[in-house]
Amino acid sequence: MNISALQKARAQYQPKLPKSLKGNVIVKEGNPTESVADQTEIKKLFPETYGMPVVTFEEGGENKKYAPMNVGVILSGGQAPGGHNVISGIFDGIKKLNPDSKLYGFLGGPGGMVKHNYCEITADFLAEYRNTGGFDIIGSGRTKLETEEQFEKSLVILKKLNIRAVVIIGGDDSNTNACVLAEYYASKKAGIQVLGCPKTIDGDLKNDMIETSFGFDTAVKVYSELIGNIERDANSAKKYWHFVKLMGRSASHIGLEAALETHPNITLISEEVAAKKLTLNEIVDDMAAVIAKRADNGNNFGVALIPEGLVEFIPEMKTLISELNDVLADGTENGEKFKTIKNEKERNKFLIGVLSEKSAALYAFLPERISSELTLERDPHGNVQVSLIETEKLLGDLLKDKLSKMKAEGKFSGKFKTQYHFFGYEGRCAAPSNFDADYCYSLGCTASNLVSAGKTGYMAIVRNTIAPAEQWIAGGVPITMMMNMEKRNGNMKPVIRKALVELDGAPFKYFSEKRAEWAIETSFVYPGPIQYWGPSEVCDRTTVTLQLEHKK
Amino acid sequence: MNISALQKARAQYQPKLPKSLKGNVIVKEGNPTESVADQTEIKKLFPETYGMPVVTFEEGGENKKYAPMNVGVILSGGQAPGGHNVISGIFDGIKKLNPDSKLYGFLGGPGGMVKHNYCEITADFLAEYRNTGGFDIIGSGRTKLETEEQFEKSLVILKKLNIRAVVIIGGDDSNTNACVLAEYYASKKAGIQVLGCPKTIDGDLKNDMIETSFGFDTAVKVYSELIGNIERDANSAKKYWHFVKLMGRSASHIGLEAALETHPNITLISEEVAAKKLTLNEIVDDMAAVIAKRADNGNNFGVALIPEGLVEFIPEMKTLISELNDVLADGTENGEKFKTIKNEKERNKFLIGVLSEKSAALYAFLPERISSELTLERDPHGNVQVSLIETEKLLGDLLKDKLSKMKAEGKFSGKFKTQYHFFGYEGRCAAPSNFDADYCYSLGCTASNLVSAGKTGYMAIVRNTIAPAEQWIAGGVPITMMMNMEKRNGNMKPVIRKALVELDGAPFKYFSEKRAEWAIETSFVYPGPIQYWGPSEVCDRTTVTLQLEHKK
Repeated sequence: MNISALQKARAQYQPKLPKSLKGNVIVKEGNPTESVADQTEIKKLFPETYGMPVVTFEEGGENKKYAPMNVGVILSGGQAPGGHNVISGIFDGIKKLNPDSKLYGFLGGPGGMVKHNYCEITADFLAEYRNTGGFDIIGSGRTKLETEEQFEKSLVILKKLNIRAVVIIGGDDSNTNACVLAEYYASKKAGIQVLGCPKTIDGDLKNDMIETSFGFDTAVKVYSELIGNIERDANSAKKYWHFVKLMGRSASHIGLEAALETHPNITLISEEVAAKKLTLNEIVDDMAAVIAKRADNGNNFGVALIPEGLVEFIPEMKTLISELNDVLADGTENGEKFKTIKNEKERNKFLIGVLSEKSAALYAFLPERISSELTLERDPHGNVQVSLIETEKLLGDLLKDKLSKMKAEGKFSGKFKTQYHFFGYEGRCAAPSNFDADYCYSLGCTASNLVSAGKTGYMAIVRNTIAPAEQWIAGGVPITMMMNMEKRNGNMKPVIRKALVELDGAPFKYFSEKRAEWAIETSFVYPGPIQYWGPSEVCDRTTVTLQLEHKK
Repeated sequence: MNISALQKARAQYQPKLPKSLKGNVIVKEGNPTESVADQTEIKKLFPETYGMPVVTFEEGGENKKYAPMNVGVILSGGQAPGGHNVISGIFDGIKKLNPDSKLYGFLGGPGGMVKHNYCEITADFLAEYRNTGGFDIIGSGRTKLETEEQFEKSLVILKKLNIRAVVIIGGDDSNTNACVLAEYYASKKAGIQVLGCPKTIDGDLKNDMIETSFGFDTAVKVYSELIGNIERDANSAKKYWHFVKLMGRSASHIGLEAALETHPNITLISEEVAAKKLTLNEIVDDMAAVIAKRADNGNNFGVALIPEGLVEFIPEMKTLISELNDVLADGTENGEKFKTIKNEKERNKFLIGVLSEKSAALYAFLPERISSELTLERDPHGNVQVSLIETEKLLGDLLKDKLSKMKAEGKFSGKFKTQYHFFGYEGRCAAPSNFDADYCYSLGCTASNLVSAGKTGYMAIVRNTIAPAEQWIAGGVPITMMMNMEKRNGNMKPVIRKALVELDGAPFKYFSEKRAEWAIETSFVYPGPIQYWGPSEVCDRTTVTLQLEHKK
């Protein structure tokens, strides 16, 4: 492997551990727990793993002897910085308990376990991956572990490799599935523990027990570096409005944290758009007002942050998309008729005729480029592909129209030139920040202690993360405790509740107090790139979100 | 100003200076110089500033007394990391020579001098900008200093502020204009020195005397960080080809350096495309061969770097664009007729009828999206706007066609899914790397010594930059020495020769030896973000280009 100067130096970094995980560990158990909602249903679905206590690891205790413990590890879903350090933490943790323990990695995600694709993770092999980004050590995948057939196939290889516990590193869905698997193996008395680990750059896997998902810190810092650089460019050249779309289909935590880091002029938060039931037109009006006011002050430039998933949070757009899906469905009369119309204007006329009045008006309001995207590029089921909508350009186009109308009315006297950016892939595989390197290594080490404590259906957690790592609190939380029942594909399912941005939470409140000032003044902050060395206030700082949420 | 933790800590950084600039300075003058070409014409155009010697500053000499010297500074053209440090170097330099010296900044580029917009740069004001990116301290602009009227208007304010010397921080064109201005003031015995400073992220202002332009180091490191992160993502997810377009209309130094840093699978170098007279079809064939070979090995992913200005280096595209400009020109029969055709197919038919056979064939070969961009969105002069062509998507679309044909012929068995990126604004205003912070501060300090030595028509230079800063060699080079005559807008003009990538230079040669391996193997290197602290081999390293060019 060719490695960079930074990777070479960074390989030497020894992640910081909580005091409680450095030596012998005492397992403290709390009271029985309940799920956050729908207790009766969840309890019924998870008789074996429901109600277990929260576990906390404390330092001390005797020097116990442990039998060798073989563990399997799986990376599930999208990449997040720090995954390799979770694996390092598990490895070092089980080797410390008994040097003959073995760690197996299932290749290419959960599918690797079902299909029996695996490798042994040895010390030499692992050395190249410590403190690095990416999931390339064993690869990741999106296979959902849901069926008994998968569970039974997996059991064959787990038994063959004498694996005692599987750690699934994933987001809310993957951890839900980890719990289902734990319950299944417990009910079958298969002797296999299943544990989870909270991963996602989206930041939407958090709750009373989980302070933050790993990878969020690093990914947002990369985006904030770039947004800060773009802000400085905007403020130097003074001629462009930069529209920055940020990855993430559901929650807007990334946009909110990036805003707290960089103070851009406009930040759209999907959850607020949904709560206030804003229309596309209202969003554009609000943005146009900011642009016009800045222009009055001679500032024909600015930076706006736009969450990738915005469109699905605008109620009228959601309705339009759902109507289009119905109208255009394969095999329906309208759907088939639509396919035969070759002329764009005719197609639009046809659609406006069959949509509800409100949706027809909205459809007519959309720029042509977007309405074509909505109707022409559909997925194999004939559905509109919302992810293809270039939301940043949609807003830019609508603003151009709006501002030229305002100009004609004497309400806008400036210029409006745009540049567009989309950040996502740039941050998912960055080398983990010190925070994520430490946090992930600690999570991995915590998971190894959950294995030795014989726990199953737990997620590894590390809390008190705004304190220095020394004082972090490690433990485990029963996954059932975080569950509720939600509708998925028409059926009620037990799932971990996704954490959207809370409009009465401290981070959003702080943002909403400041945003009017940030909109008009140029209060940009330039965070710069992640630093791995240097003053601790630079290289060890946590996200502003975490600081605001846990400020005492 | 709200400042980030990094900015706060970074403000304390004291840029490293060459030994020769730390104390008293001796001015050593070499032999008379000649321009690189067209000596007779250049000498005739620059009677006052032609033939001056190269100047080198050495340490030592007596502790001279200097009268206060007022200096004006101008930022010209696109932003490049380190501009603020050049200004800091000038400031500290003239204050050291006499504490009563004053530094004035002309606001918004060269136009600020013509229009008498300026501010005094004081120690307190400057403190917030030391070691930061951006040109926001005084702003930049693109006004060209070319006319006597501009020169005379500027002289009024220079005299009023008792300014003895103007330092123009800019690229090749701005430095050419600095020389014209120097010559003008010298011929008028105006008593104003004019000096230049080599700036541009593009890296195309370099020659025997200038090792590198400032900002290149930092900007490419930002792009390389992002490319590395994307490579790691590609190698983890294993499902996308990422096409990364890099800013820069003329030279491909940025793409070449980024390739040397990150080892992507494909890197297009515009200069090579031009030299080999490659057609668009040949470029696509070469790329398709790499994609197919990787697919044969099971690798349906990769990263390709594409220079922004590629299209203009493809001879047949250049011809097509020039023909389109002629055919579509406002006021011509064809141009006016074209405007009346509303139907896209009819428009294309019309164009194919009036273009040359080769251009018509190429036009028909282009994806519709691109041919529309070429013909519909023209500039105020009716010209095709080459900068709007999304070259990365053009290649992606052509490759999709090509690969599906290859699939039908049994020559491609993989998948080809793309993601597109464009990096430019992300790097131009990044906080300067240690190299650029030191280099720029040294350039500024050098400029102040050129002022006190009474020089005009010189560019500040700092050489031996692959050695530690202590051993760098500072001095000045007559701008006329770097000039030759080139055709600009139909007339022969004296200009600084732009440095394109040399196909027989060490960086390209190294790249061309390695690229076949990088194409097929996955040899990605992940440079990570710029570090301002940490091991010197990480935080002080220069570009690979510089190392290869000056390796002894």
